[in-house]
Amino acid sequence: MTTPALFLSRRLRKSPFETRSHKGATGASVYNHVVLPSVYISLEEDYWHLREHVQIWDVACQVQVEIKGPDALELAEYLTPRDLSKIVPGQCMYVPLIDEKAGIINDPITLCLAPDRFWLSISDSDVLLWVKGLAVGAGFDVEVCDPNVFPLSIQGPKSETLLSRLIDEPVGDIRFFRFIETQIAGIPLVIARTGWSGQGGFELYLSDSSEGERLWDIVTEAGADLNLRPGCPNLIDRIETGLLSHGNDMTLDNNPIESGLDRFFKMGKTADYLGREALERIAEAGCPLKMVRLVVRGDPARNPRETYPINLAGTDLTGCVTSITYSPRLECNVGMGYVPSDHAEVGTELAIALPDGIVTGRIADKDWQTGEN
Amino acid sequence: MTTPALFLSRRLRKSPFETRSHKGATGASVYNHVVLPSVYISLEEDYWHLREHVQIWDVACQVQVEIKGPDALELAEYLTPRDLSKIVPGQCMYVPLIDEKAGIINDPITLCLAPDRFWLSISDSDVLLWVKGLAVGAGFDVEVCDPNVFPLSIQGPKSETLLSRLIDEPVGDIRFFRFIETQIAGIPLVIARTGWSGQGGFELYLSDSSEGERLWDIVTEAGADLNLRPGCPNLIDRIETGLLSHGNDMTLDNNPIESGLDRFFKMGKTADYLGREALERIAEAGCPLKMVRLVVRGDPARNPRETYPINLAGTDLTGCVTSITYSPRLECNVGMGYVPSDHAEVGTELAIALPDGIVTGRIADKDWQTGEN
Repeated sequence: MTTPALFLSRRLRKSPFETRSHKGATGASVYNHVVLPSVYISLEEDYWHLREHVQIWDVACQVQVEIKGPDALELAEYLTPRDLSKIVPGQCMYVPLIDEKAGIINDPITLCLAPDRFWLSISDSDVLLWVKGLAVGAGFDVEVCDPNVFPLSIQGPKSETLLSRLIDEPVGDIRFFRFIETQIAGIPLVIARTGWSGQGGFELYLSDSSEGERLWDIVTEAGADLNLRPGCPNLIDRIETGLLSHGNDMTLDNNPIESGLDRFFKMGKTADYLGREALERIAEAGCPLKMVRLVVRGDPARNPRETYPINLAGTDLTGCVTSITYSPRLECNVGMGYVPSDHAEVGTELAIALPDGIVTGRIADKDWQTGEN
Repeated sequence: MTTPALFLSRRLRKSPFETRSHKGATGASVYNHVVLPSVYISLEEDYWHLREHVQIWDVACQVQVEIKGPDALELAEYLTPRDLSKIVPGQCMYVPLIDEKAGIINDPITLCLAPDRFWLSISDSDVLLWVKGLAVGAGFDVEVCDPNVFPLSIQGPKSETLLSRLIDEPVGDIRFFRFIETQIAGIPLVIARTGWSGQGGFELYLSDSSEGERLWDIVTEAGADLNLRPGCPNLIDRIETGLLSHGNDMTLDNNPIESGLDRFFKMGKTADYLGREALERIAEAGCPLKMVRLVVRGDPARNPRETYPINLAGTDLTGCVTSITYSPRLECNVGMGYVPSDHAEVGTELAIALPDGIVTGRIADKDWQTGEN
């Protein structure tokens, strides 16, 4: 079934780059009330290009939530089990946010702009309302607002070369998950070595939306001989890289331990945080399910509209596939999903119910190996 | 510029009606993380059909937020300046939700299911996070959850005839903004005389998503001789009817007084509510801007991607158009927007900056009359 074209109105917040980024996009989604291109030429063409060259991405949908004021750090700590006590200005941290039951609200990257000022660069849910609600309800002395910041991303192996043509600072000095405040052609920007791909790159946080088109054009021109073209977060690359997508791979119904996000934090941080009791109980009891990577040979599978059920041969235990796509490089389907924790070893065979029938998959390691010959 | 096709994944929550409702939809948006069809044949064709017949709408995007427990009413009251003290089970009320500065968070319809159990049938923002944040932060003794309810709407002048064929209860007994709990072909439903059109109709709240397609087919079959077809909230009808759209006509930056939502409540309710102080200050000082209806003769105007600026002849005062579309019935453009409160009389001439040039408009009354000959 073909899907309808996007119908735009003021309600879908305008990206300052959209006159450029929507051109040539053949598929798009909506993310944080902003249009997010999903495909340009094809998932496969976009994927190969991203791995070889550099792309410019309109990720204005990565909306920022600003927390500012005397209690800003205390509130930021309260939102996540990750320890933020050592965060310094110029640093980014990936912070799963949880609710009182340890359900995952969102999984932003926080940027520490000053000891009393943070941005949360969010995935697709209205974190502004969550943080405001908590702050107002519990009486934190902070301002929580949407600072109207619009990220533009450059991703791919040539992104460092590209950025070095655009800023005065030595690009090599920007460490992974660090940012600097600088400018390109007089346009003030926060530039971080972050981004939603496995190919390396930078995110340029633009505050002055009136400069969006100029910034896009300057970056595009500077990358002309690098085979730069517009792109977007690519489904194949993001699954291969193991980047979890909130809403796809984890929801409010999942906790960070079963989703494997606990690799980003240690239990038992000092500062108070919401959901501590629930999360400690889960950590102690263990999770019935665990997120794994999986490989399915055979025909290309469509990414699920809902989860695909997983059955384990010879048992009554079930799980589900949350994301899957065909990798033209690995020549198999690569996916993510939840399986019973006791059956999460690499190589375990899984029966997966795709819409067109049941197929066999195997749990894979981080290099997508399943232990098969 | 043509817009790209919608790219679907699990993150855009699946409507139980979508195998039916997406068929024939030529335009769609995303609303509360759910696909909302926006156009079938054309805005104009859809509009005329809605005014003459009956349409079946997939409005699964009208997500519910459930508030349940000993403090449910107290929390519901806390969210809105509207007095809920006399609400009874079976009653719906339109309740603008505001924040501590009296900014509009959302404008749901609340359904009172029991004295300690409410649904908020929301417009496009994650009210679940707002209400949970407030409840957790301030310690209300409630459960706040997404009850997984999927509304299907039947709208248009023949909707009463249609519904009378489907339920045993006398449809005439369901008053405006009231609901009953009943069933259609064994499918339990909450059915309310509400809906996002000016043509009358009902909303059927489905809890068992596995029955979505069957419900759709039963309703469709029962309406075959009524010229029933799939439809959706129609831009022309909703502007003509004066229905405000959150995200289009008002945002967190607007308060309910300037947006004219204060006609739904009286200031000074007894129960405590967030934003009372701010709202009372605004009520006392008066708002610089006020929402009005407006008419623009001439060529059809496109609905704005951002607001269109309004200037008032002979003054420095400005306002903006938030929604506008061409009405084939009134043979002019009808819109809504904000103008300086001192210049809000019907007939006032406005200079409106559309993308293709400046046009003249006039403030209109509720019947779209401007006092011109």
